Amino acid sequence: MDIQDLVRSLHEKSDSKIVLLVADGLGGLPIEPGGPTELEAARTPNLDNLAKTGVLGSTIPIKLGITPGSGPGHLGLFGYDPLKYVIGRGVLEATGIGFHVGPNDVAIRCNFVTLGPDGTIKDRRAGRIPTAESGPLAVKLRQVKLPGVELFVEPVQEHRFCVIFRGDGLGGHVADTDPQKTGVPPLDPVATEPGSQRTAQLAKEFIAQAEKILAGQPKANGITMRGFSTKPALPTYQEVYGLRAAAIAVYPMYKGLARLVGMEIVGQPKSLSEEIDVLQQAWKDYDFFFVHFKYTDSRGEDGNFAEKVKMIEQFDSIVPRVEALKPTVLIVTGDHSTPAALASHSWHPVPVLLSAATCRPDACQAFGETEALRGGLGQFEAIYLMPLALAHAGRLAKFGA
Amino acid sequence: MDIQDLVRSLHEKSDSKIVLLVADGLGGLPIEPGGPTELEAARTPNLDNLAKTGVLGSTIPIKLGITPGSGPGHLGLFGYDPLKYVIGRGVLEATGIGFHVGPNDVAIRCNFVTLGPDGTIKDRRAGRIPTAESGPLAVKLRQVKLPGVELFVEPVQEHRFCVIFRGDGLGGHVADTDPQKTGVPPLDPVATEPGSQRTAQLAKEFIAQAEKILAGQPKANGITMRGFSTKPALPTYQEVYGLRAAAIAVYPMYKGLARLVGMEIVGQPKSLSEEIDVLQQAWKDYDFFFVHFKYTDSRGEDGNFAEKVKMIEQFDSIVPRVEALKPTVLIVTGDHSTPAALASHSWHPVPVLLSAATCRPDACQAFGETEALRGGLGQFEAIYLMPLALAHAGRLAKFGA
Repeated sequence: MDIQDLVRSLHEKSDSKIVLLVADGLGGLPIEPGGPTELEAARTPNLDNLAKTGVLGSTIPIKLGITPGSGPGHLGLFGYDPLKYVIGRGVLEATGIGFHVGPNDVAIRCNFVTLGPDGTIKDRRAGRIPTAESGPLAVKLRQVKLPGVELFVEPVQEHRFCVIFRGDGLGGHVADTDPQKTGVPPLDPVATEPGSQRTAQLAKEFIAQAEKILAGQPKANGITMRGFSTKPALPTYQEVYGLRAAAIAVYPMYKGLARLVGMEIVGQPKSLSEEIDVLQQAWKDYDFFFVHFKYTDSRGEDGNFAEKVKMIEQFDSIVPRVEALKPTVLIVTGDHSTPAALASHSWHPVPVLLSAATCRPDACQAFGETEALRGGLGQFEAIYLMPLALAHAGRLAKFGA
Repeated sequence: MDIQDLVRSLHEKSDSKIVLLVADGLGGLPIEPGGPTELEAARTPNLDNLAKTGVLGSTIPIKLGITPGSGPGHLGLFGYDPLKYVIGRGVLEATGIGFHVGPNDVAIRCNFVTLGPDGTIKDRRAGRIPTAESGPLAVKLRQVKLPGVELFVEPVQEHRFCVIFRGDGLGGHVADTDPQKTGVPPLDPVATEPGSQRTAQLAKEFIAQAEKILAGQPKANGITMRGFSTKPALPTYQEVYGLRAAAIAVYPMYKGLARLVGMEIVGQPKSLSEEIDVLQQAWKDYDFFFVHFKYTDSRGEDGNFAEKVKMIEQFDSIVPRVEALKPTVLIVTGDHSTPAALASHSWHPVPVLLSAATCRPDACQAFGETEALRGGLGQFEAIYLMPLALAHAGRLAKFGA
């Protein structure tokens, strides 16, 4: 029995409300010896006030030392063991562009490639063909006809696009056709388990027809297919936690990840401020609200310490509007660290703040990584955040008599 | 999927270098109320400087409350779950005397015993016969001839020696012949699974011939056999981490443990200073260096607080020579605690120091057990040390997209 099985057997009804405010890539690093992290450098009076009355800690998104991608990072935050529930690359790519991957779908990441006259790959990314050129080409591939399945071809960016086969009994276990080098032809799509042979045949047919359609293109005259995958069988928030859950996000990727665990996507906010408008409007209709803020991660990925600090300050500024709704439990954290110093996701623990009337307070006076080291929540794996939230929300029965 | 499986799927190439400096039995206890531990009492300016810029924590070698022997302690440090990979007693004994246990070997710990005229055991340790007498007797047992296997008989110490059968298809599942009491005869060697019946027969034959050879000896006129075991199937550092790993140690036991996980044993140092000479010489040829210092444990086992403090100071003094090599990641820790106050290994967490450019610093100002309690690494199981090292060395890809 893992923690999620346990919670599933213990959750009970309540009128309480839980808000999970996620600043993507929140955790950081100093850019000079002895200096503050982005969160410590930012002026965050509202979060600091919450830290004084609430309780701090640090989450390990996956396991110590492991850097999470957005998929596993969010699954962990949502309380789903990211090593048990693996989201395939194709499904994640489709999710990221807002495609609703269904239970009968196989999603595939595709590249346009440049093939030589001998059929070998000259460029695995078709010269990084601009999106303005590749998008219409992807749409043109919708002309492909495959027997007995519905086909979706979706542009992504530059040389990348996405293909979805929709039909009964399609397995997702097909090997990549990208040989990972040039000078050789693309590989054939080969099923790695019997239940995926039809998918492999469909892929082969798709490639053949695609090459006819692309014939004569100067750069994008071939394709490779990778990350064949089906929608993971994730239990829903309703099943596991008994929660009517709402997701409020600007970016398709995070809406998609929330949808995979059965959250409802509410509103179509275009900014953090609009996200909080949506939160206010949806307040009566749900028990749990996941609110996602992207730009802390974006500026971290840019390697821009000062701008990440500004994004954290912007994030801090909306906290009073959330508090005004009087959530029973308010959690503020990130899905992973994205230190500007590394300009990438990292494995470092993520500061977390939990505010509820039932907190046992600690001595923390501000929200930050160093302060969190003496926080009452200690250091723990992110999958335990949801059980903690439910407990503070009065939504978990006693285990055993 | 455990953490080692995960790391195995994520490791990638880099030019970075990792040094794992192990002071055996490093963790300690105060010898007076309110006093310092050995590490805290020692003058360690170099380690304290590293602690200021690096990050501290405490490792749990196995699980809370469990005192590790040298085998499990090192396996954990090396990132191998010591509850999954069990090194048999016979293999550990053979390893400890520098015998290279191979894939076709069964290693057995043996005792000389004193048998009465009725064949019952009078003394289970043959009066703790001195090594000067038992060694030649063990060598004499090399006269035993067994059909179809190669035989090794190796002296160890006092009443202890080691037997290795080398041949195809020998199982290691044979029950001990030591009845654990006197006044009864030794037990027969009995296979506890079908694949080990030939081993049991060979053991029976060995015992019969040995008793003939030993007949008339005043003390050591019989033997018992214990800890039958084969080499554990441990994946190598190259397989799991993609690391070319070197082990630098004075004592055979630690070289042997390192060899079991595929490290290469480099040099033949006789002292800590010579170990660092070897480290310098081997620097270009490996990615990872395990450097083992024995005497912190030895003086702890002696119950000598003051001498353990001196050994820690000696250990501290070589740190600048290691730093001068500019390792990407430098880790300093122990495989377990050996408090002089207990004069034995113990279950207490072990202080660990990790120094790398990618550390998120904590407030720690010196290397010690109490200071480590507020360290940024927190308290964690030792098997996570290697994933952390690889992450800081830029050798782990992101998990998921």
